[in-house]
Order: sequence, then C-alpha cells, then structure tokens
Amino acid sequence: FTRPERRGLAFENTFGGATSFLRRRYTKDLSGVDLVVTGVPFDQAVTNRPGTRFGPRAIREASTLQPFDPPYGWGFSPLDEFDIVDYGDLAFDYADVAAFPDRLTDHVRTILQAGPGTIALGGDHYVTFPILRAYAERFGPLSLIHFDAHSDTWPDDDMSRIDHGTMFYKAIKLGLIDPARSVQIGIRTHNDDFMGMNVIDARSVHEEGAAEVARRIRRIVGDHPCYLTFDIDCLDPAFAPGTGTPVWGGLASWQAAAILRDIAGVRLVGGDVVEVSPAYDTTGATAIAGAHVAHELICLYLWMRRST
Amino acid sequence: FTRPERRGLAFENTFGGATSFLRRRYTKDLSGVDLVVTGVPFDQAVTNRPGTRFGPRAIREASTLQPFDPPYGWGFSPLDEFDIVDYGDLAFDYADVAAFPDRLTDHVRTILQAGPGTIALGGDHYVTFPILRAYAERFGPLSLIHFDAHSDTWPDDDMSRIDHGTMFYKAIKLGLIDPARSVQIGIRTHNDDFMGMNVIDARSVHEEGAAEVARRIRRIVGDHPCYLTFDIDCLDPAFAPGTGTPVWGGLASWQAAAILRDIAGVRLVGGDVVEVSPAYDTTGATAIAGAHVAHELICLYLWMRRST
Amino acid sequence: FTRPERRGLAFENTFGGATSFLRRRYTKDLSGVDLVVTGVPFDQAVTNRPGTRFGPRAIREASTLQPFDPPYGWGFSPLDEFDIVDYGDLAFDYADVAAFPDRLTDHVRTILQAGPGTIALGGDHYVTFPILRAYAERFGPLSLIHFDAHSDTWPDDDMSRIDHGTMFYKAIKLGLIDPARSVQIGIRTHNDDFMGMNVIDARSVHEEGAAEVARRIRRIVGDHPCYLTFDIDCLDPAFAPGTGTPVWGGLASWQAAAILRDIAGVRLVGGDVVEVSPAYDTTGATAIAGAHVAHELICLYLWMRRST
Amino acid sequence: FTRPERRGLAFENTFGGATSFLRRRYTKDLSGVDLVVTGVPFDQAVTNRPGTRFGPRAIREASTLQPFDPPYGWGFSPLDEFDIVDYGDLAFDYADVAAFPDRLTDHVRTILQAGPGTIALGGDHYVTFPILRAYAERFGPLSLIHFDAHSDTWPDDDMSRIDHGTMFYKAIKLGLIDPARSVQIGIRTHNDDFMGMNVIDARSVHEEGAAEVARRIRRIVGDHPCYLTFDIDCLDPAFAPGTGTPVWGGLASWQAAAILRDIAGVRLVGGDVVEVSPAYDTTGATAIAGAHVAHELICLYLWMRRST
Amino acid sequence: FTRPERRGLAFENTFGGATSFLRRRYTKDLSGVDLVVTGVPFDQAVTNRPGTRFGPRAIREASTLQPFDPPYGWGFSPLDEFDIVDYGDLAFDYADVAAFPDRLTDHVRTILQAGPGTIALGGDHYVTFPILRAYAERFGPLSLIHFDAHSDTWPDDDMSRIDHGTMFYKAIKLGLIDPARSVQIGIRTHNDDFMGMNVIDARSVHEEGAAEVARRIRRIVGDHPCYLTFDIDCLDPAFAPGTGTPVWGGLASWQAAAILRDIAGVRLVGGDVVEVSPAYDTTGATAIAGAHVAHELICLYLWMRRST
Amino acid sequence: FTRPERRGLAFENTFGGATSFLRRRYTKDLSGVDLVVTGVPFDQAVTNRPGTRFGPRAIREASTLQPFDPPYGWGFSPLDEFDIVDYGDLAFDYADVAAFPDRLTDHVRTILQAGPGTIALGGDHYVTFPILRAYAERFGPLSLIHFDAHSDTWPDDDMSRIDHGTMFYKAIKLGLIDPARSVQIGIRTHNDDFMGMNVIDARSVHEEGAAEVARRIRRIVGDHPCYLTFDIDCLDPAFAPGTGTPVWGGLASWQAAAILRDIAGVRLVGGDVVEVSPAYDTTGATAIAGAHVAHELICLYLWMRRST
Ligand SMILES: [Mn+2]
Ligand SMILES: [Mn+2]
Ligand SMILES: [Mn+2]
Ligand SMILES: [Mn+2]
Ligand SMILES: [Mn+2]
Ligand SMILES: [Mn+2]
Ligand SMILES: [Mn+2]
Ligand SMILES: [Mn+2]
Ligand SMILES: [Mn+2]
Ligand SMILES: [Mn+2]
Ligand SMILES: [Mn+2]
Ligand SMILES: [Mn+2]
Repeated sequence: FTRPERRGLAFENTFGGATSFLRRRYTKDLSGVDLVVTGVPFDQAVTNRPGTRFGPRAIREASTLQPFDPPYGWGFSPLDEFDIVDYGDLAFDYADVAAFPDRLTDHVRTILQAGPGTIALGGDHYVTFPILRAYAERFGPLSLIHFDAHSDTWPDDDMSRIDHGTMFYKAIKLGLIDPARSVQIGIRTHNDDFMGMNVIDARSVHEEGAAEVARRIRRIVGDHPCYLTFDIDCLDPAFAPGTGTPVWGGLASWQAAAILRDIAGVRLVGGDVVEVSPAYDTTGATAIAGAHVAHELICLYLWMRRST
Repeated sequence: FTRPERRGLAFENTFGGATSFLRRRYTKDLSGVDLVVTGVPFDQAVTNRPGTRFGPRAIREASTLQPFDPPYGWGFSPLDEFDIVDYGDLAFDYADVAAFPDRLTDHVRTILQAGPGTIALGGDHYVTFPILRAYAERFGPLSLIHFDAHSDTWPDDDMSRIDHGTMFYKAIKLGLIDPARSVQIGIRTHNDDFMGMNVIDARSVHEEGAAEVARRIRRIVGDHPCYLTFDIDCLDPAFAPGTGTPVWGGLASWQAAAILRDIAGVRLVGGDVVEVSPAYDTTGATAIAGAHVAHELICLYLWMRRST
Repeated sequence: FTRPERRGLAFENTFGGATSFLRRRYTKDLSGVDLVVTGVPFDQAVTNRPGTRFGPRAIREASTLQPFDPPYGWGFSPLDEFDIVDYGDLAFDYADVAAFPDRLTDHVRTILQAGPGTIALGGDHYVTFPILRAYAERFGPLSLIHFDAHSDTWPDDDMSRIDHGTMFYKAIKLGLIDPARSVQIGIRTHNDDFMGMNVIDARSVHEEGAAEVARRIRRIVGDHPCYLTFDIDCLDPAFAPGTGTPVWGGLASWQAAAILRDIAGVRLVGGDVVEVSPAYDTTGATAIAGAHVAHELICLYLWMRRST
Repeated sequence: FTRPERRGLAFENTFGGATSFLRRRYTKDLSGVDLVVTGVPFDQAVTNRPGTRFGPRAIREASTLQPFDPPYGWGFSPLDEFDIVDYGDLAFDYADVAAFPDRLTDHVRTILQAGPGTIALGGDHYVTFPILRAYAERFGPLSLIHFDAHSDTWPDDDMSRIDHGTMFYKAIKLGLIDPARSVQIGIRTHNDDFMGMNVIDARSVHEEGAAEVARRIRRIVGDHPCYLTFDIDCLDPAFAPGTGTPVWGGLASWQAAAILRDIAGVRLVGGDVVEVSPAYDTTGATAIAGAHVAHELICLYLWMRRST
Repeated sequence: FTRPERRGLAFENTFGGATSFLRRRYTKDLSGVDLVVTGVPFDQAVTNRPGTRFGPRAIREASTLQPFDPPYGWGFSPLDEFDIVDYGDLAFDYADVAAFPDRLTDHVRTILQAGPGTIALGGDHYVTFPILRAYAERFGPLSLIHFDAHSDTWPDDDMSRIDHGTMFYKAIKLGLIDPARSVQIGIRTHNDDFMGMNVIDARSVHEEGAAEVARRIRRIVGDHPCYLTFDIDCLDPAFAPGTGTPVWGGLASWQAAAILRDIAGVRLVGGDVVEVSPAYDTTGATAIAGAHVAHELICLYLWMRRST
Repeated sequence: FTRPERRGLAFENTFGGATSFLRRRYTKDLSGVDLVVTGVPFDQAVTNRPGTRFGPRAIREASTLQPFDPPYGWGFSPLDEFDIVDYGDLAFDYADVAAFPDRLTDHVRTILQAGPGTIALGGDHYVTFPILRAYAERFGPLSLIHFDAHSDTWPDDDMSRIDHGTMFYKAIKLGLIDPARSVQIGIRTHNDDFMGMNVIDARSVHEEGAAEVARRIRRIVGDHPCYLTFDIDCLDPAFAPGTGTPVWGGLASWQAAAILRDIAGVRLVGGDVVEVSPAYDTTGATAIAGAHVAHELICLYLWMRRST
C-alpha cells in the first residue's frame, strides 16, 4: 500500500498485507488512472437473505490469489500495462435508505467525470440502477449484458421503492438501457414480461455451449457501448452458494468464464459483480467467482484499449 | 396460514411467516384437495450419516423462495389452478422403530382413500417402502422412476430389517413394483443384481444428455401408473452435499431439472424426495434442490390433469 | 396446528410438525387469548451485520425442544394454565423502509386493543421503538428493563433515521420511557450520556452475581408497568455468537437465566427478544437462548396473573 | 499402532497417525490390561437431533492433543503407569434396533469378565442402560454419578422402548442403580419425579462452586461402587454445542473439570461420556470436552489403584 | 484392525471402527503386500491456506463409505483379489522443515525396496517431489500424469526452497521426469514456461470431453512407467472447496472419474492425491473426491496385474 | 485510508472501507508515531492445526466494530489522543522457514529504533521469540506477562528448531526474559519445569477472581519494563475456538478483560496477541477477542503516557 509504482506488483504474501483488489493502490487520486474498482456495500433492497454488504470485502480477499500471473487465456497483462486503482467503498448512511441512490449516482458520476470507467463490487443488485443513471448521463441508453437467474424486470411503477428485483423494469422505462440491444443470460425464473430484452435462459446455455452463447451476445450487442452486470446467482448454487436468492439449474463456473472470455471485443464502458453474500458463502467459491468475474471485466474493459 | 383462499398466494415476506410448503394451507381437511404434500421425518434406517429427519423442515423453508412465480418453463400455474395442501408431518414413536412402517403405510393409505395423491418429503429412503405398499394396494405393481446413486436393491430377505439400502429388493420380491417397467437414473455404485430394473447410470447421463435420458425413461415407463422417487444423492456432492451417503460423479442440478421437465406426460400417481440431510447441507443447495424437485413433482402430477 | 385445544400439547416429534412458538396455535383470532407471541422479521436498521430477519424463524425452531415440560424452577405451567398463541409475523414492504415503523406500531396496537400483551421476536433492536410507541399510548411512560451490550442511546435528533443504536435516545426524548425507573444490564461499550437510565454494566454482573443484580432491578422498577427488551448481544459471544454487533466480556447464559427468574413479581406488560441473527449462529446457542428468553418472558408476564 | 510397548507414547505427530484414544494400542487382546476404552456408535434412541454415532470418532481425534503430558493437576501419569487399550467400537446392525441392547450388554460383559473396567464413548445416552445391566450383574446396584441437563427418568413402563430420556427410570425400577446413593448434577429441565436420586441442579453449581459440589457428591456416594455417566449436555451450549438436546444455563467446562478432579477417591468401576454429536459441534469444543472427560475418568478409575 | 484375513472386509459399521484407508490392515509389515497406502501429513510449503496435514485423516474417513462394493465400472474387485495395506503416516519434525524432504524420500524408498508401489495421501503438493526422487532412483525418468489447476513449474533454482509451486520445475531440471512423455490436465493459471510438458487445459477438458482427453493422455504416456499425481484443485471449487489455492473453471467430478477410468492400461508405478484441506472442506466433497481418486489409483495400479 | 488527520476517525461504515486495525492510517512512515500495530502472518511452527497466518486479517476485520467509541472503562481516548498507525504485515518467504526469525527480529528492531513500541498480531506463538530478541536488545531482560494454556517452556536445546512450544525455554536460557519477574496466567497443561516463572493456573483464576489475579501480576512485575504476550488459547474453547491447540477449562472473556484493565500501571513496552486461527473460528469470537486484547494492549501501553 505504500509502493510508488502504479503498475506491477509489490511483494506481499498471498495471506498477508492490505487487501485492496488485486493488490492495486488504494487511492482517491484519479489522475492518470485507466480504470477504477470501487465497492458498494449496500444490501437493504433484498427480498430474501441480506448480507451482500460484505461482498466487496470478500471479493477483495479472494482476489489476493490472482495478481501473481496475468489472467489465463487473455495474452496480455492488464496489471502491468495499465494503471488500475482501488477507490475504496462508498460510505453512506445505512439508517437513511432513501438517500442512498443519489449518493451512489454521485459517486460514480464523479469517477466517470475524471476519466476512468468503473468496475463496481456489490452489494445487492439494486446498486446497478444508480450506477446506470450515471452511465446513461454520459453514454445515453446502453446495451446491457445481464447475467442473472432472474430478469429483475418485475413491474413496479413506484420509483421510490428500492428493490433488487424491479430495477431493470425502471431502467427501461426511464430509457437508461436499450432493451433490443440488451441480453439476459442464465434466466431460470418465470416473468410474464421481459420488457423487450433478449433472453438466453440457463437451459440454453447448457444445451448450446458457451462459445455459441458468446456469439449470440456479440451479435445482439454489436459495437454499441455496453455495461455488463453480473448477478452471481446466475451461477448454480453449487458454484455460488453465497447469495440471497439461489435457484437451481444455473451456470457452471466454466461456462461463465468462457462466455466472458469469448465476448472480448464488445465496447465495454463499465461493469459490476453483485449479490455475493459472504455469510452464506460456506465454500468460498462465491467470492472466488466474484473476484474472477471482476478480473475478467477488467480484461474486457482494457482489451480494446491495449497495445496489441 | 389464516387466509381463506385455497389457491394463489397471500402476502408474506420470503423470510417471514409460517413455512408450509410453497405457502400452501396447513390442513388435515382433504375435501376438494387435488394434491397433498406431507413430511416423513424418519431417519433411523441409515448406513452412515443420520439427520434426514430434519429434511421436511429444510425443504419447506427453501420452498419459500419459489411460490411468487409459476415454475419456469412449464407454461401453467399449479398454485393458481389447483388446491394443493400441506398436510404436515407424520408423527410417530422414535423409540419404537419396528412400529414405524405400518404407521406410515396407514398415513398414506388414509390420504389416498380421500382422493389426492401424495408428494412426500423425506426422511431417509426407507420411507418409500411403506409408501409403496399403500400405493400398490390401490394401483397394483407400479412403474418406479428412481433417481439415486445407489440401486437400493442389495439382497435382504429379512423383511423386518428397516434399512435404506435394501427396500427395492423387497418391493420387487413383494410385487409392489414392476421392474421391467421401472428405471434407475444416476447409479454409480456396484451391485451384482439390479433385480431386473432398467439402469441409466450417471456416466450415461453425462454422455447422452438430459433430453435423451428423458426419452429413454418415457419409453420404459410408457403410460403405466408410475411413482417417482428422488434420492437427492443422485446429484453430485457439489450440488447436494447434505445427504448421508454421498458419491462423486453424480448428476448436475441442470440435468435433473431438464429430465424432470422433459418426462412430462408420464402418468404420475405420487412421488417423494428423500435423503435431504440439513446438518450436512452446508451450502443450502441440497434443500433448494429438494424443494425444486418437490415443486417439479407437483407439476408432473398435475400436468395431465391441467386444463390446457 | 389443527388441534382444537387451546392449552396443553398435541403429539408431534421435536423434529417434526409446524414450528409455531412452543407449539402454540397459529392464529389471528385473539378472543380469549391471554398472551400473544409475534415475529418482527426486520433487520434494515443495522450498523454492522444484517440477518436478524431470520430471527423469528430460528427462535421458533429452537423452541420445539421446550414445551414438553413446564419451565424449570417456576413452579407453574404456563402452557397448561393459559391461552398463548403464535400470531405469526408482521408482513411489510422491505423496499419501503420508511413505512415500516408505522406498520409495526399499528400491528402491536391492534393486539393490545384486543386485550393480550405481546412477546415480540426480532428482528433488530430498532423494532422495540415502534412497539414502545404502541405501549406508551396505552400505559404512559414505561419502566424499561433493558439487557444489552450497548446503551442504544447515541444522540440522534433526526427522528426519521431508522437506526438500531439510537432509538432509546429518541424514546426518552419522546417520553415513551421513564429513564429514572429504567435500567440497562450488561453494558460494556462507552457512551457519553446514558440519558438518565440506571446502568448495571457487565462487569458488575460478573462481580455482584445474578441474585444481587435482580434485587437492584426490582428496586429500580418497583411496581411500575414495565417493558423488558432483551438484546441477545448482552450475552457474551461464546453464548450468543449469532448477532450483529458482538462485544466480548458479556453475560453468561446462567446469569441471564437467574436474573430473569429472580425478577418475577415485576409488573410486566410486554417484552421482546431481539438481534438473534441465525446466519452467524454457528453453534445454535443464540437461537436456543432467544427461545429460552421468550419462554421466561411468558413466565414473567403470567406470573402475576397465575392462580397460585 | 505397531509399537510393542504397552505404556508410554510412540512418536506420531498430533495431526498424523491412527487415531486410537490417547494413542493407546488398538487391540481386542485383554490379557494384562488395566482399563479398556470402547466406542458405542449408537444414536437411534433420540428425541431430537441424531448424530452421536460419530461421537467416538470425534472424541478419539480430539484426544490426540492430550497424551504428550500427564493430565494437569493429578500428580501421576496413567499412560505410563498402566496398560490402557482402545478396544475399538461395538459393531451392530443399525437396521435391527431392537437387537442392539443385548449386543451391547454382551460386549461389556465380555470385557468385565476379562478383568478391566470400561470407559465407553457414546453414542446417545441410552447406551448407559445396557452397560449398567452388565455392571449390575457384577457389582449389584450401583451408585450413579450422573452429569446431565436432564434427569432421564421420565416414566416409561414399556421396557422395549429404546429411548434416551427414560432409561434411568427403568434402571431404578430394575434395581440396577441405588437412587439414594446416586446423584444428578447439572439438571435444568423439569421432571415431576426424580425417582429418589439426589439432585444438584445447574444453578446450585453456579452458586455453590465446584469444590462444594464435589464434597456433596462424595458425601452421597461414599465408598459404594459407583458408575459415572457424563451426558455432555450438562455443559452449557457455549461449551458443548455439539449435542442433541441442548439447554441453556449449563455448566462451564472449568466447573466440570474441577468437580471431576475433586471427587478423586470415589470407588469408580466404570464410566462413559455420551451425547457428543460432531455434526453440530461447530466449534470442536464438544469433542475436546468429551476427550477431557474420558481422560479424567481414566484418572479417576486408576487413582485408587495407583502406586502412590 | 484385528482380523486375520488380508483381503475382503470385516464387519464394521460405516460410522464405526478404526479408519484405515478402505478398512485395510494397518501394518508396517510389507511381506506379501501388493500395494501400500501411506499418508504424508505435511503442509508447510504453501503459498496461501495451510491445512492439508489433516488430508490423510479426512480421506481415510471418507473412504469408509466405499469398501462394501467393488469400484463401479471396473469389473474386478481389488480388495478381494489383492493384499493392500495402510502403512500409516510418515512421522516427522514439524519444527525442522528443511529435514523433511529426505525423511520422505527415505520413507518411500523403504517401501519400494520391499516390493509394493505406493499411493500417497497428501499433504500439500510439494510432497510429490521427494516421492519422485525415490521413484526415479528405481525407474529412471518417469512419465508424469499431472492433474492440477497450476503447472507448478514456476522457475526456482534454489533447490533448498520447499515450495508447492515450483517442484516440477526442479523435477524436470533434475531429470526425475521426462516432460515430453508427461501431461498436465486441468491447467487454468498462466505460466510463461511449462518446461516442455504437454498441457490439456481445463477449457479443453470441458470442450473435448473426458473420453477424448483420456485418449490424448494415453497417446502421450504410451507404455512408459508413469506416476500419477492428482492435485485436488484441478477440480472446480464447487467440487473441491477444501484446498489451499482454488481457481474457478475447473473440472467436474464426473470428468475426473471418467478420465481416470478410461486411462486404464497405462503402466502406473505409483501415485498420490494431494492438497485436500479439511478445514476448508465445508461440504465434505473434497475428502470424498480424494478418497475416490485414491481408490481409482489403486484400480489403475492393479489393473495390469489382475488375473483377467 | 486517504484522510490527512492522524487521530480520530474518518467516516466509513463498519462493514465497508479498508480494514486497517481500528481504522488507523496504513503507513510505513513512523515520524511522530506513538505506537505501531503490525501483523506477523507466520504459522509454520505449530504442533497441531495451522492457520494463524490469517490471524492478522481476521483481527483487523473484527476491530472495525470498535473505533467508534473510546474503550469501555478506561476513561481516556487513545485514538483521539495519540498517533497510532497500522504498519501492515511482515512479508517473508514461506518456503524458507529458517530465514524467518531474523527477518522478524529485523522488522521489529527497525520500528523500535524509530521510537514507537509495537503491538504485534500473530501468527503462531513462535513469533514472540524473534520479537523478544529485538526488545531485549533495547531493554535488557524483560518481565513477561504471559497468558496461555501452555507454558511453552518444553525443553529444546536445538536453537534452530522453530517450534511454538519451546521458545520461552530458549528465551530464558538466552536471557531475554527474567523468569522471577515474569508470570504465566491460565496454564492448564502439565510441564515438569516452568523454568522459574511464576504460574497462576486457570483454576486459580476461576477461584480467586480477576481482581486478585491482577494484583498478583502487578506485584510480580512491579515497575520493571514488561512485555505482554497473549496466547488466545488461554481462553476456554467456548470463548476462543479458533486456535490450534485448544484445552478445556480456560479463562472466560470477562476474566481476561478485567485482568487486562486492572493491571493498568505496569510499564508496558510492547505486546502481542497470537494463535488466532480464523479457519477454526466458527463463532467469530476468537477474532473479536483478539481485537479486544490488542485494543486493551494499546490502552495499557498509552496509559502511563497519557495526559491525565
Ligand atoms: Mn439480479
Ligand atoms: Mn438474481
Ligand atoms: Mn436411495
Ligand atoms: Mn442413495
Ligand atoms: Mn446490542
Ligand atoms: Mn441493542
Ligand atoms: Mn442424558
Ligand atoms: Mn441430556
Ligand atoms: Mn499443485
Ligand atoms: Mn494446484
Ligand atoms: Mn503459547
Ligand atoms: Mn497455548
């Protein structure tokens, strides 16, 4: 945490040292920074089990196993080539839930205005909504690549309700995302109306395979600016027990990994991984998956910006 | 628990309220009832780890996440179209094990005589034996669709032994099931004699895929009255750690889900899900799987009875 | 759950059956009822770890071990002599936190107007505030017997903040409780201002013993109408790991048990046990303690009403 | 396991090697043996949570930390001075529960006839009943020193019921123990009739202290041949979470340790430690306690036989 | 442990008895022995989480479920046809790490000189290095079949460092293994140099299937003497959470099982299963997998020696 | 982590933000610093269960609950009055254990030369030995206040062995500590020779009470420079399950808290808390206790330096 270099790795044991994400510098200084990782420890919008406020901490700890080598299969080294920082967590008043959404939109807006994109570590899935507001201000309606067991488009016209199951209904109603250029992967709960988003349900992933799913995603998204949100419950409970609303029949880790690798080339402007709930993550696999997803998001974000 | 309506859903939070299965009415009154869910908290017949007596409680709790929407991929809504009740658990004397089998046969006979079929929540796998006795009284020798890592046909001619590994040997000897029209799925332990049942072992499922396995099951069972028993250990320990005799190499959740969906059309007269052992279910995935299986069994039972 | 008798016990195995508190009738019908147990699965006001929304469910399950015999050391049998019911849980909108307090005050007011007092199962400690509003409407400023590691009187003049650490500051400011006739037991965190309440800190309990502490409480409370709120974190983390803000040096279970027994004779009008957080209750001891506390509260409530 | 010496200790790491109790020889050869440790992995008599069949295994594993030094505070070294063996576990048919009691009585009778006494590792508390039958055959009615939260004297005149809550009622009715010379320590559940046994309830232990309790026990037992049975649930759930029927307000480990040390001098003929249930022993403290109790029982047994 | 027969099975309950591997005789006497299982509880060479010193104990306990029937799908019965023994664990000085490698090489050399091969239960992966030294002394440079998420060929020319991530770099440098005839399966971490070994990475296994992978392995290895080392972290964290350096995207249990079965015919001279870390094995699936792998290794070893 | 102030507290949620100890600045700059907290994640010297390398991380996380208010019962506010920093963890080569002791002595020497004392977070108990070497260089032979279940003076004249059970034997032999002015509290394992240290065993603490024990300690230590080492296993497994060599009969948290408070006035020059092993800390109570102990050590260190 005290090293002067912006890239590469200082010597710490895997099990020691301050647990910033991938051992990046902890800083609020964004000058020259390429990409920001930030935590959003909010979990007050949930239907069932809370606990994702500890998601950022667990994902960071799990990430300490990963920075020693470049990510497998990508052929470049983001930590050596780019200046990625850990911006810390949003601090907010847990006793005034209604004030939270604007706090988070401001937080992200500030970062985006300084230049870098954000990879957010949730928190429950509601956090994607205030983040998307900041992104849509800058980029207009976005393509959404949405991994989830749930569509999160259950109808809810009360915009003041803070609910992790209805925010994409609202985002579409408010024009933050363009449903025709968006896609949901891993769905396996019924909803009468997916609000115009493309759906690749879990069984399709199991039957078509990751490579074909990646091709379909790239076809839908094209080169539109896109935001990728990864609800960890798109994985099966065997791979991600640590989450609030688990549903059987989900994706395997290797399917998610291959899809994320194979969509390289999309024009990613930001992303998040949400719904990691450490108190239920008895195997640790959920935090590991969360850290891998965030690492892959970093690769996706920097892929188009790398010096080949 | 106090609502007057027999169908649909009253407002309770997922995390609150009395935990009847899928929030159905808790009642012993069977008039007008289409289907009964009942728990059998018996676990005194086990080779290795006990604990399935808490299976019914855990499965019910896990089911509270599921009633909000119709089951995915079925295209009808059992909870809205039918009167399904939670009949509670069989109460019995744990200190007089020998008396248990008749208690359970009586319990099921009483329900069947009132009209509805039963979906039983185990308990260890022995409970299927007394249940089958009641069913065979009514339907004659049944087709058995048997998901399991184990054949449970180890030879045992002492009919008074109460053992969760030998009851299908006895059921076949006693003519309760018709082995030629029965099928075991997920087997991965050796037995010299499968007693004439068809076997689709675990490796076959992995190599042939769920859709093909479902076709084979339907071909074997035809339109004979069938009973489906789902030993949760047919799933791999990654998907169902909470069980007494886990064996590696088992089914994935998505395979089980697809098979259960694709055999829709069989003439199901009853079913059970057994061997869910909460004390070992560290991820919670086992109870989730158990609740999904029971939910799918409800769909299968009602599929042929639905108004298309 | 279907037995006609209002008192006594129907036959269910400890490990089977519907898990109402102490196997009482689940009902919303309050005619003739002496005392009501109700759950408040709210946990959105917490500083640190959430999860107490599952407190009521865990406490009820733990209670199934207790109804077979009268409570030890009391010399009467509340379940046989009185009509105690389980009123179920408050249902509320988790996505509209600001609306919660009035929902809960209404809930309790409705019960009190029907006659019986309430024993509430939390939920986080904030729930005591809306409950006290309903009680103070009926009884005027109450004596509070408050077991806790924390005073929960941190200053907060924003009455709309919903915080589990400031509600007794507000309750005193609003005249719901009379601090001079109130007492806090088990305190071991610093606060500049205890707002006039009497304090018996944790070390005092260890040094003076339970019997003396009970005498001091009775002297402070006298025969004023009193409400007893038991934050489970007054116990040491060894005895109650399943809570959100654990502090070492707390009470032993036997001290709490003896104090609760020895204050018999106070004029209890209601009570609650809060901050039981099952996801962290790895030993199960916290839910057990919660169920014992609620059982003792029932005894205390009925003690003055019993036919000696 | 292959060393020739009968006493002392061979070199194995704490974490390695075969896990016989205190690293004693695993053998069925009783010639020259002073004391036998044997496991009884039976748990089919329980009211609530099963799992004590894994008690012997867990207690043995926990014991590997203890043989390096003589037991603290005793002033002699049992492992060096005596030939103590691990006789292994009773093997029995779990599917024929009714046959179990005679199997166990035979097992113990065989050992007693060869000369040494037994320290049994349970198993649920029912196992003490068949053991007492073998002991009473040899010694006549015994003094029972009974540590427990429960009296286990609930009335049950059906001698064929195999229940861990009624066997001392039966033992007294059958004359296996002499209640007037027997004592129960740690009781904290109500029972209308303790059948004439002396009772030192849990609160008495907390208020009088271990030394005084030990004096009372010695006074009651005198120099009558006595059998000590230690139900681990006499300890508080904080100290022994891994058990089937936990009750708050129990003994602390240090109280049990001091009482067991201070009653040295009683004429112990055998003993057991029961109700250790590893699946619920999340802290490991229960198995540790079980191993310490068994070690102290060895000390007590050999104390009168040591060469001072 | 006292039975005279060298083959077959004595009667013990799954949950009872001494936990030697597959209930084999615990002995140091190697006369007439076909194959030796031995534990190496060493874990002081690890990058991240320690704890594999308890691997041998956990694998042995998990193995008690397996000896009742011949291994599924092999068509012969190793336990009946061969004399397999449990040789116990290597004992060593944990406080003198530098002395460990030679201790282990001596241990294995002693066994090999007596005739039988060894199946070692780790311990961390470093233990394979001293074992390979003993094997290379006897067989010359070996083919290595290496299942792992990591190549363990990170460069390290300090031969005195005892590190579980660099030992195959050293083994190749020292000529213990022949990289061109060796193969790594399951790799999913980057390394600039695999030192000439063939690599079948995890994604290849998922895309090509187990049968094809087995064919590739057999082609590479041919009929050269080969040693198989199975780092349990080649499995996905869903299937093997109990390990020190988990990486997502790994193999499923059924893939490992099928590959191990399908390579039958290789000329196996020894093998090990390592990196099973019970403290993190919350589901138990890791120990189960470890026991299955060791059982399959026994089958592979004896396959070419069986009387068809 | 970016705030300019050296004292007081910046706004972070308990559950968010970088987890430095008590939210102190993470820095290697020691100018003007009063006291340093540093982690030593070393666990390669242990007899039984490893895992304390994660102790520093867990203690820091547990400490986030504590900085909001001054420590209870001390009457001053160390975080406001002094400049306390978190110096991070010692980084070292886990694969070269022999090099570790000198690395740690250098680490501490560097800090002491800059002025402040150190509070170290272990790691296993061996770490105290290299630390004491640095302290003795500066202060000469120290008084040791040693909380532990074990004396850690088992004889071992091989100074190169790195063992957590023999280092005080060596420290006394080397003159690093003065046994006559040193004291061990909580001992409950036998050792033939305590090397001249005063011993207040666990039973004495239970019988004499904390206040008397504190008096005895102060009498022994006087105003000699003293170092306090707190092996968390001095607490009973109920209060500290997360440790490697637990022994029943230990101290309660409240006894340790009271003793630490009551010895205020000793001339503390440094201290540590060791043997916190998070993988076994299933209740979290061990890390909580560790954080409290470290906090109390800060208070003790600054007590004599405070402006009254
Ligand atoms: Mn979502
Ligand atoms: Mn979701
Ligand atoms: Mn079965
Ligand atoms: Mn099975
Ligand atoms: Mn509190
Ligand atoms: Mn409170
Ligand atoms: Mn008992
Ligand atoms: Mn008991
Ligand atoms: Mn490896
Ligand atoms: Mn590896
Ligand atoms: Mn120590
Ligand atoms: Mn110690």
